[in-house]
Amino acid sequence: MATIQARCLYDFDGDVHNGELSFSAGETIYILRQDIGDGWWEARSDNGTQGLVPETYLEIVSVPEPEFPPPPPPGPTFSLPSAPPAFATNGYAGSPPDRGGGSLSQQQSFDDWDDDEWDDDDGESSNSTIGQSQDLGGKGNFGLEAPKREGKKVSPGQEISRYGTVKSSFSRFSHFAKSGGEAFLMGQTTDRVGESDKIKIIETPDGPMWLKEDSAYTCAVTSPKKESKMKGLKSFIAYQLQPSFSNIIVSRRYKHFDWLHGRLECKYVCIPIPPLPDKAVTGRYEEDFIQERMRALQGWVNRMVRHPVISRSDVFHHFLTCTDDKKWKVGKRKAEKDEFQGGKFFQVLQPPAKGLDIREVEAKMEVFCKFVLGMTENMKTLITVHHEYAKKQLGPFKREYSKIGSSYKQLAQTFNLDTSPSSRALTSAIDYTGDAFNDIGEMFARQPPRDAYPLIEAFYEYKGLLQTYPDALKVHEGAIGKAKECTKLQEEGKMSESEVNNVLVRADTISYGTLAEMNHFQRERVIDCKSMMQSYLKEQIDFYKKLTSKLEEALQRYDNA
Amino acid sequence: MATIQARCLYDFDGDVHNGELSFSAGETIYILRQDIGDGWWEARSDNGTQGLVPETYLEIVSVPEPEFPPPPPPGPTFSLPSAPPAFATNGYAGSPPDRGGGSLSQQQSFDDWDDDEWDDDDGESSNSTIGQSQDLGGKGNFGLEAPKREGKKVSPGQEISRYGTVKSSFSRFSHFAKSGGEAFLMGQTTDRVGESDKIKIIETPDGPMWLKEDSAYTCAVTSPKKESKMKGLKSFIAYQLQPSFSNIIVSRRYKHFDWLHGRLECKYVCIPIPPLPDKAVTGRYEEDFIQERMRALQGWVNRMVRHPVISRSDVFHHFLTCTDDKKWKVGKRKAEKDEFQGGKFFQVLQPPAKGLDIREVEAKMEVFCKFVLGMTENMKTLITVHHEYAKKQLGPFKREYSKIGSSYKQLAQTFNLDTSPSSRALTSAIDYTGDAFNDIGEMFARQPPRDAYPLIEAFYEYKGLLQTYPDALKVHEGAIGKAKECTKLQEEGKMSESEVNNVLVRADTISYGTLAEMNHFQRERVIDCKSMMQSYLKEQIDFYKKLTSKLEEALQRYDNA
Repeated sequence: MATIQARCLYDFDGDVHNGELSFSAGETIYILRQDIGDGWWEARSDNGTQGLVPETYLEIVSVPEPEFPPPPPPGPTFSLPSAPPAFATNGYAGSPPDRGGGSLSQQQSFDDWDDDEWDDDDGESSNSTIGQSQDLGGKGNFGLEAPKREGKKVSPGQEISRYGTVKSSFSRFSHFAKSGGEAFLMGQTTDRVGESDKIKIIETPDGPMWLKEDSAYTCAVTSPKKESKMKGLKSFIAYQLQPSFSNIIVSRRYKHFDWLHGRLECKYVCIPIPPLPDKAVTGRYEEDFIQERMRALQGWVNRMVRHPVISRSDVFHHFLTCTDDKKWKVGKRKAEKDEFQGGKFFQVLQPPAKGLDIREVEAKMEVFCKFVLGMTENMKTLITVHHEYAKKQLGPFKREYSKIGSSYKQLAQTFNLDTSPSSRALTSAIDYTGDAFNDIGEMFARQPPRDAYPLIEAFYEYKGLLQTYPDALKVHEGAIGKAKECTKLQEEGKMSESEVNNVLVRADTISYGTLAEMNHFQRERVIDCKSMMQSYLKEQIDFYKKLTSKLEEALQRYDNA
Repeated sequence: MATIQARCLYDFDGDVHNGELSFSAGETIYILRQDIGDGWWEARSDNGTQGLVPETYLEIVSVPEPEFPPPPPPGPTFSLPSAPPAFATNGYAGSPPDRGGGSLSQQQSFDDWDDDEWDDDDGESSNSTIGQSQDLGGKGNFGLEAPKREGKKVSPGQEISRYGTVKSSFSRFSHFAKSGGEAFLMGQTTDRVGESDKIKIIETPDGPMWLKEDSAYTCAVTSPKKESKMKGLKSFIAYQLQPSFSNIIVSRRYKHFDWLHGRLECKYVCIPIPPLPDKAVTGRYEEDFIQERMRALQGWVNRMVRHPVISRSDVFHHFLTCTDDKKWKVGKRKAEKDEFQGGKFFQVLQPPAKGLDIREVEAKMEVFCKFVLGMTENMKTLITVHHEYAKKQLGPFKREYSKIGSSYKQLAQTFNLDTSPSSRALTSAIDYTGDAFNDIGEMFARQPPRDAYPLIEAFYEYKGLLQTYPDALKVHEGAIGKAKECTKLQEEGKMSESEVNNVLVRADTISYGTLAEMNHFQRERVIDCKSMMQSYLKEQIDFYKKLTSKLEEALQRYDNA
């Protein structure tokens, strides 16, 4: 198999446990895959070792003739952000992964896809086999993002955007242009929008908001079942989905979720789509993992059905309701050929007529951007501190209490040598105290799944969601920049007033869409944080009350001693 | 100054921080002091380094002609057991000392004694100056005990008694003989006992007990004052003691307590006298230390006034009531010349007439011995586990909670960027949650002085008391052994029946005294343990209730968010 050669620009000290490949500046390595995502490629060094490498550290020196079918034309692009880890319900250990599981997730998801009979004649992925994945469009990050590994230094020559590091060879407008946003802004997209496709944005005291339809609904994700096909050669887990507006249960596999996720990302250019839970590489048929995955998928579905735009989108409805194989394929193809995806999505927006003050919008966005970056860091910190504390509860706390407990049990054993009645009651109280401390130790160890883990999980979900935000904000940043450019061209007499006015109206549409989503996010964030903090504190209170009762029971034993 | 030369029998790896001197087997060192206690001597190595050495590791090779006044003839001997450490009331750190502070304590106490004008013309210590201490009798351990340092291996050639290690050159009867117990048993002490000196032992359902007089009283130890003499050149701390039966307050220094302690140890051969709190080498005028010492002395006095025998002893009354210098000296001399001390103490006992079954008594004592050794170990373990847990509360717990707290404070800072009213209430609740967690961290750190330290202190007191027990039990063990020997001699026709019967009656007296004290100990132990556990658990309950309230307050803040 012919491979791409790349020259290493800087030293890279890879983490073997993360599957990373180390290299030195000046070395030549061979790129095996470029569709890993999050700024990571797969490569092989001269000595045959394979691993992940950060693309920004490399310069491609030779590209072979393609052996694969050519990739689809670049459409809207989004990087797959890091997703929350799978929490085992009993026993959560290890540090939260700092890098998104995008790479393996994607690979596995394609593997899965390959053996789906529904898609066998779908053309799109029919030739791909394990180890020979290909860029399916809507994936990959077009080099816009540096690998999302914390603690990695920004390489010389990288430009710092307010949204993070980007490669020097791409301007902050690239993402805007690639997304199709620029084409929309410049009036190059003129498709007619049907009434049902229109999405209304209204002005509210909290700013522009998506119009919320009355047809709110929920959708339960239940009963994961291990199913098989090809006479049992292939097996997979199917989850049962039942929307509240329907009597029909649909069966969906992770790969269907993954496909839907991709479609939503492609279509809703100003709406960050929360990442799906990580795909597990091993143990994916284990009961704990399946239950955990189901819970995470339920969380993802909950967020989607609550979204005023996504919840009423055709592709989402198709996903929630279609039970017929043929109809599924038709709907799938239709969604993939959606004419209003990417930059063209802005065409369907019906914002308020009132024009926006660009500087005001910019100021708002700047604050929001700080908010997103700040909250991302906050989430990381909170995950770490709660995780560390939970680890202490599982280990040291439990140990300390059981040490105290067994010391009192031993004391009771000694006291038992004195068999006089006056001593016996005390001995039994001391023995009970030992049990109480042992129990308290156990309680500490059982506590994290009740309070810390759900909280950490919620923080993880937000961390993932927040990490998808920069792309949406970059589109808006690009639009504003381009609109300003046009105003300047008008001043220089290089563009007509009416042309520029049209650009500004369309820039407002992009701003309205972005602001509506921003306000939706903030509203959800307040509701979510309130509820997660309430649950956490209630569980904590409950825990300490139980602990206090334990001690009170022990104290009572001394009344008769 | 001529010194004693000793040959080192084994390698000794001394702990410099404990003032110990290391040496190798075969080395010759110079003994500077043999009156350190607990099996430790002070020595100087060839290179001039000085430090403490374990006497059982040494063999004396040359003894010089005495330059000091000769030591008093060997009277009753007791080893000074390890005493509880001085707990600073705010901030208790460092591991509990495993070795009794007897050595330094004693040295300092003599230094103190030396500059006491009351004793300047007392003869006994008139010639001693700082650095030139001498054996005052009733101190030193006559080689009976190996150094009480945990973790030190038993040297080859040492014999294991049920009470611990003893030097091979002394049998378990030595202590009995030296204490004067043997003389009493064999009827060699015939002094007449006055009515007021008699101490009655009664039979109770719990076994033989000291007769408790109605005249129960308490004694407050208060108002430590820094006083000075010799025109301010010498200063010391005097504590004010007021017994509940008297209007007069007496002023007592630590050295007076120390003297009293020595007298009680000499006199009450079958009553273990709890050790005094450690003498501090540095910082003995610091407020915390003084308060702590006062509290510990109060604890010691409490235990003494509760003791049915000690509380009504002449020497203790003298200590509690005498305010006149001249009378003090008279009383002091009288106490030191007490005719019923050591083995002769048994003469004053008035036990029940009923003879005892030696085997039953032996069985009881064996169980009690197990009890004492077991509880000693239990106390050490409990001190360690509570101490470790308290250290965790001061450090890691506080840190964890303040990390969580500041993470929420940071989150609130980010959330503050969203100034919409719906967000503000949440932001303030999150901010409050951060404060609550910080406060909880502080609460954890403030907790040990409220619950763990008093408990640890109580365990320390018991550990000290328990460590004085083996000597009392050894006297009894010796008596039983001797009595059996006499029975055997009678069988062999070497002793007359009446002679042996008298021995057995006197052995019963020793047994009664020992059993009465054992039963007293057990009664006190039940009362003390009940009360210390109740206090500890109450404080813990109180703490967790406060912690719960903190969390509840935080939770309430979300009601309006």
